[in-house]
Amino acid sequence: MKASTKIFGCIADPIDHVKAPSLFTQIFKEKNIDAVMIPINVSAINLEQFFSCIKSVNNFSGLTVTIPHKTKVLRYCDLLEKEANDTQSVNWIKIEKNKIIGTNFDGIGFTNGMKSNGFSISNKEFAIFGIGGAGSAICHSLLRNNVKKLKLINRNIEKLNNFVKKLNKLNYKTEILVDDFVNYDISNFDYVINATSLGLKENKDLIFDVKKTKLDATIIDIIMEPEETILIKEAKKYNRNYHLGKNMLTSQVDLAGKFFNLW
Amino acid sequence: MKASTKIFGCIADPIDHVKAPSLFTQIFKEKNIDAVMIPINVSAINLEQFFSCIKSVNNFSGLTVTIPHKTKVLRYCDLLEKEANDTQSVNWIKIEKNKIIGTNFDGIGFTNGMKSNGFSISNKEFAIFGIGGAGSAICHSLLRNNVKKLKLINRNIEKLNNFVKKLNKLNYKTEILVDDFVNYDISNFDYVINATSLGLKENKDLIFDVKKTKLDATIIDIIMEPEETILIKEAKKYNRNYHLGKNMLTSQVDLAGKFFNLW
Repeated sequence: MKASTKIFGCIADPIDHVKAPSLFTQIFKEKNIDAVMIPINVSAINLEQFFSCIKSVNNFSGLTVTIPHKTKVLRYCDLLEKEANDTQSVNWIKIEKNKIIGTNFDGIGFTNGMKSNGFSISNKEFAIFGIGGAGSAICHSLLRNNVKKLKLINRNIEKLNNFVKKLNKLNYKTEILVDDFVNYDISNFDYVINATSLGLKENKDLIFDVKKTKLDATIIDIIMEPEETILIKEAKKYNRNYHLGKNMLTSQVDLAGKFFNLW
Repeated sequence: MKASTKIFGCIADPIDHVKAPSLFTQIFKEKNIDAVMIPINVSAINLEQFFSCIKSVNNFSGLTVTIPHKTKVLRYCDLLEKEANDTQSVNWIKIEKNKIIGTNFDGIGFTNGMKSNGFSISNKEFAIFGIGGAGSAICHSLLRNNVKKLKLINRNIEKLNNFVKKLNKLNYKTEILVDDFVNYDISNFDYVINATSLGLKENKDLIFDVKKTKLDATIIDIIMEPEETILIKEAKKYNRNYHLGKNMLTSQVDLAGKFFNLW
């Protein structure tokens, strides 16, 4: 740490599961960049207060935003990049010329993470549980990658229907389906994704029954703490292929570096 | 850096001379304490905005305050410890139970720093240039240490006279004198202190003429960037003893650790 060190933050609540501060601080070090990323624990009720003052810190360069703030921080941005506007969800913020600029790399981070691990995406069939900040970003990126079929499953039906209406207006070729949160059919999908917070940390709730997927399906979790979630354990138990949550974050490293003009 | 890392800050403007972030982050590491101190560059005009929101960050543990904010932050504290109230100047802040608590270790840090370097204080004669945040804290601590004589020299005469009135009310035995900022007599003092910001960083202005001190006087600077200021260079040139600014900070390490219940 030096007087000149640029400060980045990772804002979340709770904070104790976040991986970004250690990951990015380590990457800054390896790349010889004079910067750190600190954990910033702000409750939802204090978000407005927090954002009212981040411009006052001249050496504060930006933030990554995570659970539960991704959709709520939207209103505090002065400018939104396309990905943030499409998904109405923000996971990276930079402060430039006294403007708070929001973007979202969850979607492209997710699909890049799959590709760099050898999974093909276009023309494949996906089912996803959860359409919150991360889930909706993933859906947009899957549509942009021309998946064949996308089934959305969400506890809140009204929110789900509104989201589907929005996606349909975008005129992608993908067939978009919805299903019931309890009685879902995921028997014919190549990839089944958990984009909810079930399985985070101490939580042991399973979002879906892995046995209901086809034998060559790939089970994907976006939870990265623990690295091997209860869902991934189930996938292993029933011999399904799987893809870990941490890939969505590590594949955002390059994107974030470019966003902040760091590399 | 981890999700659980406690965040301390060092608030200043400009920021690029501050030593505390590297010093304290290193000390935390050596003591195996999961904490860092980050530089926080806030302009005076944005102080209110900054302090209006620091309570919103749950893992933000406290601050050290330096030039030019030491007197201005007083108004944002909910509670003041005796040293901060005496000097009307704050250089350490902690946030406890949603209260901002201010204290000031500059004075005791200064006198402790002298003592630990073998300088005796009581019954000695001191002259000090500058009665801002640090200077006034040093004066209070010198009085508490029963110095024989204390001469105060300050560009702003009205501020100086008010300060002397305040000191006299405290009924210490020390003889308190004032002198002119241009035509000063420092020929009979054991210690002559620079407590202004002259000599900081690129600034090459000399606060006083070292040749006007007695041959066995000790020249003391509170500036710590550069470590060897132009004043200290003059002291060396004219064979005066000297005491570096960094001692005031390093001797605050133990005090700060206790203030934050860290060690």
